Amino acid sequence: MDGSLMISGTFLDEISHDIPHQNWGRKEWENDFKLMKKMGIDTVVLIRCGYQKFLTYPSKYLVQKKDCFMPRVDLVKQFLELSELYGMQFYFGTYDSGAYWATGNMTKELDVNLKVIEEAYAQYGHFKSFKGWYLSLELSRRTKGAIETIATLGKQCKAVSQGLPVFISPWIDGKKAVMAADSSISKEEVVSLKEHQAEWNEIFDGVQGAIDIVAFQDGHVAYDELEDYLKINKKLADTYGMQSWTNTESFDRDMPIKFLPIKFEKLLLKLGAAKRAGCTKAITFEFSHFMSPQSSYRQAGHLYNRYLEHFGEQLTS
Amino acid sequence: MDGSLMISGTFLDEISHDIPHQNWGRKEWENDFKLMKKMGIDTVVLIRCGYQKFLTYPSKYLVQKKDCFMPRVDLVKQFLELSELYGMQFYFGTYDSGAYWATGNMTKELDVNLKVIEEAYAQYGHFKSFKGWYLSLELSRRTKGAIETIATLGKQCKAVSQGLPVFISPWIDGKKAVMAADSSISKEEVVSLKEHQAEWNEIFDGVQGAIDIVAFQDGHVAYDELEDYLKINKKLADTYGMQSWTNTESFDRDMPIKFLPIKFEKLLLKLGAAKRAGCTKAITFEFSHFMSPQSSYRQAGHLYNRYLEHFGEQLTS
Amino acid sequence: MDGSLMISGTFLDEISHDIPHQNWGRKEWENDFKLMKKMGIDTVVLIRCGYQKFLTYPSKYLVQKKDCFMPRVDLVKQFLELSELYGMQFYFGTYDSGAYWATGNMTKELDVNLKVIEEAYAQYGHFKSFKGWYLSLELSRRTKGAIETIATLGKQCKAVSQGLPVFISPWIDGKKAVMAADSSISKEEVVSLKEHQAEWNEIFDGVQGAIDIVAFQDGHVAYDELEDYLKINKKLADTYGMQSWTNTESFDRDMPIKFLPIKFEKLLLKLGAAKRAGCTKAITFEFSHFMSPQSSYRQAGHLYNRYLEHFGEQLTS
Repeated sequence: MDGSLMISGTFLDEISHDIPHQNWGRKEWENDFKLMKKMGIDTVVLIRCGYQKFLTYPSKYLVQKKDCFMPRVDLVKQFLELSELYGMQFYFGTYDSGAYWATGNMTKELDVNLKVIEEAYAQYGHFKSFKGWYLSLELSRRTKGAIETIATLGKQCKAVSQGLPVFISPWIDGKKAVMAADSSISKEEVVSLKEHQAEWNEIFDGVQGAIDIVAFQDGHVAYDELEDYLKINKKLADTYGMQSWTNTESFDRDMPIKFLPIKFEKLLLKLGAAKRAGCTKAITFEFSHFMSPQSSYRQAGHLYNRYLEHFGEQLTS
Repeated sequence: MDGSLMISGTFLDEISHDIPHQNWGRKEWENDFKLMKKMGIDTVVLIRCGYQKFLTYPSKYLVQKKDCFMPRVDLVKQFLELSELYGMQFYFGTYDSGAYWATGNMTKELDVNLKVIEEAYAQYGHFKSFKGWYLSLELSRRTKGAIETIATLGKQCKAVSQGLPVFISPWIDGKKAVMAADSSISKEEVVSLKEHQAEWNEIFDGVQGAIDIVAFQDGHVAYDELEDYLKINKKLADTYGMQSWTNTESFDRDMPIKFLPIKFEKLLLKLGAAKRAGCTKAITFEFSHFMSPQSSYRQAGHLYNRYLEHFGEQLTS
Repeated sequence: MDGSLMISGTFLDEISHDIPHQNWGRKEWENDFKLMKKMGIDTVVLIRCGYQKFLTYPSKYLVQKKDCFMPRVDLVKQFLELSELYGMQFYFGTYDSGAYWATGNMTKELDVNLKVIEEAYAQYGHFKSFKGWYLSLELSRRTKGAIETIATLGKQCKAVSQGLPVFISPWIDGKKAVMAADSSISKEEVVSLKEHQAEWNEIFDGVQGAIDIVAFQDGHVAYDELEDYLKINKKLADTYGMQSWTNTESFDRDMPIKFLPIKFEKLLLKLGAAKRAGCTKAITFEFSHFMSPQSSYRQAGHLYNRYLEHFGEQLTS
């Protein structure tokens, strides 16, 4: 038995914020689902259903009311179909207009998403693979309007879908929490463990009942600090009746190229910390760029091979 | 019929400013010409014949008078030969000493290029595929010395070559007009449509008679603003008797990695705007890094496949 | 006869500071040694045996006393074995805790490395391919504590290994000497040739007897300035009884992506300068990312092909 949690879920990074697009068609996507399956992935999460004017699905609401571009391909339908075909659970990621990133105020994303959630479930809720929701608004401590927005949207998701589970993936305000477009790779002022606990206690209290699962991003703190943060997260999640997953980043935050696949040893260290902290599931951001043999980054295919070598026995048993 | 302009030309990015070199030999270049042909490209434009001390051709003048390095391979000859073989029109790009970038004063490039233009035509003008000139000095509004330099060089090109066409590819001073070496991907102070029209009216007036074609770069403004700019450009070009092409960028300016291939949907949006604005030809910067199946960036080959899928019917008819 | 020095050595960039990991297993590494051999490489240099908490070998000392992570694979053993198999000389690179980079004071790395050197030779000195030492602490002029640290560590290496050769690879404080995480690619304040000579004279004097070989990095000055610096370096090395190698960088410092393979012509210019300056050996940083056909960067394989084409006759004779 290996002392690391295995990855059983991945984000689907469509539409991307900061990772260049691979320009895949249906054939490449179908092949990627096969490759995911082979390494034990049973859950896929659409990172967001739209970003600014770009959409993953033909949303009448967003095209007509928000001047979004009508997409060429219905990716949501495609991913739901592939999920059915390969026995995956699909989580739908909400819309990101860019207004929160521009203003720092998360409530700017509230009204538009109440509509999007309703529309999306009406359009795709009949798929058997539609298993839950992902609130794509990434929060950390001191995110203005976060509690109100997250709680309201989580309840809306549950209301329209007979209570399907809802999850969030916040970041820890650690030393590697810098913007992708910044040239630096670390910063000085970071949150302490104690502040982290106090502030997240308040946030978890505020979103209780609306959120079922919390999957913290694992790349913003040092490798030897991660376990302590994950343990606090787990304890808080237990207190408020939520599941504690880990969102293990398969790209490397320590390098000046933003972003290429992570070194396998680093990934393994983080999965070990997640296991010891009692996380119940590991999802990754994300398979198709950073772990897939099909990736434009050849390091990704080697990471896949190292992963299969390491966990191979557990995968076939 | 698709509502987008098709790409029928590409730059050849030798010598490159900011895109890492692929280290191709003649074999790879010949294969790239075949791949270009297959997607409907009939025009190739040498981005510049030299940059600082690096040259694409053995220029006695630049080596002896400007201490440039003698190149190992005569790329101009190679590209002219391949153009003849594959039925392409070749445009020769002028020299860039770096002095304009360092000082902001474009007249610093005037004298050296008067000589280079003369030398180049004497050396290569006998090739049937030598069909025109590209003034590689990129200008935007308020470029010091631009009108004088561009007008003088354009007239020199025509004088030595019995009036072969001359084109420029300026940039719009929009929100994505940041330097490649900057870490940011956008800026705050940008030109308005009204200023753009007024300033380019003055520039077009100043270079009238020396320039035949203007191909604005299409990557510096938002996707939904592009059409308005292209329409102004077209109207100005018509007023001053110039052709209006679009220089559609096939790399993605929205990503922190500078630069990788663009998402196909974005390219298509821009080609649609160009068609509606009445542009008569689309060239791209550039095929070999960002659209070629041979590219070091695997996203490029997928972009090529998406492009062929989308436009396939029009290409074979 | 070509007027360029040929490359006969390479660093092995494990553990990397700033080049994303390729996630290779033993099979890929063995194949890379074959590819190295084919282009004339007979010397491999481990860039460092550990960086911060990451190690290349199971060091009891560093794991128990410095809380380093126990590595999954013993890369030092692997590289020594492959070196024996393919007739390579292996140089062991010392440890880098990160303290010197963080404080600017090189003496912070002294004590830990005295122990590491002793431990490493006890553990691996019996390999026939263990042929020397590389002091991985990169210095330039005005590096606080450099002379004391380098001299002491060089003597320690010799003392434990019956005088095996020791080398360093400093950088020239030229216009391209910027940090990898900086967004810029050049700076204004640079050392003059005269200052360079005066300051390095002092440094060479201070480390005399402890260092056998100096291999300056060749990427921090302009291509047409390099020869002058290398000539000074050679003269100084001769004065103090050291060998003068060149460390030719096979990545491109002129591009905003940090870092991708260099253009072959640039590499050739630098190897020509090294030959004229009288350097006796060229090693490169480094083969596996920037020159190998196996590299994740496809430009690297083309660089390898260009290199073999150019030097092929000399390689087979």
